[in-house]
Amino acid sequence: MSAKIFPTAQDAENAFYEALERCDLEGMMAVWAEDEDVLCVHPTGGRLTGQDQVRESWAQMFAAGPRARLQVTQQVAISAMMLAVHSVFENFSLEGAAPGDARPLPIVATNVYLRTAAGWRMIVHHASPAPAQPAAAEPRQAPPKLLH
Amino acid sequence: MSAKIFPTAQDAENAFYEALERCDLEGMMAVWAEDEDVLCVHPTGGRLTGQDQVRESWAQMFAAGPRARLQVTQQVAISAMMLAVHSVFENFSLEGAAPGDARPLPIVATNVYLRTAAGWRMIVHHASPAPAQPAAAEPRQAPPKLLH
Repeated sequence: MSAKIFPTAQDAENAFYEALERCDLEGMMAVWAEDEDVLCVHPTGGRLTGQDQVRESWAQMFAAGPRARLQVTQQVAISAMMLAVHSVFENFSLEGAAPGDARPLPIVATNVYLRTAAGWRMIVHHASPAPAQPAAAEPRQAPPKLLH
Repeated sequence: MSAKIFPTAQDAENAFYEALERCDLEGMMAVWAEDEDVLCVHPTGGRLTGQDQVRESWAQMFAAGPRARLQVTQQVAISAMMLAVHSVFENFSLEGAAPGDARPLPIVATNVYLRTAAGWRMIVHHASPAPAQPAAAEPRQAPPKLLH
């Protein structure tokens, strides 16, 4: 699990969303810090704490396998030397849905990354349903706000 | 608005929740960074960006005046030199409710604070309803995880 090194918070975020789209549990857990303080709030869910609760929640979510494409949009990034905070919209598209089908609601997520001895890792993921599709689909990669 | 200086992220958080309980709009906005990148997600709401949207949302929420007591519990704090992330439960108790009345669901919130030239200020508040009352009401002030 600890073999992967993410040189930047963005690398960790890219790996997080690749694992989420592919329902890849080991890939997902490789992104999280090996820290008992990791926190995860899934949409409409409670707060999960620690590696074990977080792994179990993703295992349950991934059990049915990949069913949706994921597009991450409107990223706002706040970056310091040891911590980075990214806010994004997660837009899921169900596989096989016809063009006229209702799209699932977007999810707004706050992701916090920590610089560890083994590179950048996720320490907080807080996701909740957003009430309506945001107006503009801006590019995912906006210039981050750098604090140093 | 910029007169208040919060020497620590915890001071900013205390002021945030005092303002929230009192429905004090100026007190609330004094906590937020004067930054166009501020982000706010209210429970079941979309993502608000910038001082104007954030102020307007609190103004609407505070219009009816204080109606609930607020207890903040189970804080987990992750602190770096320039950024701090606090995860808390917000427990509201409606004024005048009888002891047997159903309690409102708790809110889980991720709060991000930025060290600015004018002290610590809030830059992200992401709140969403938690499905059930957490098991244990731990003290609000747990020792923060320090990264430096």
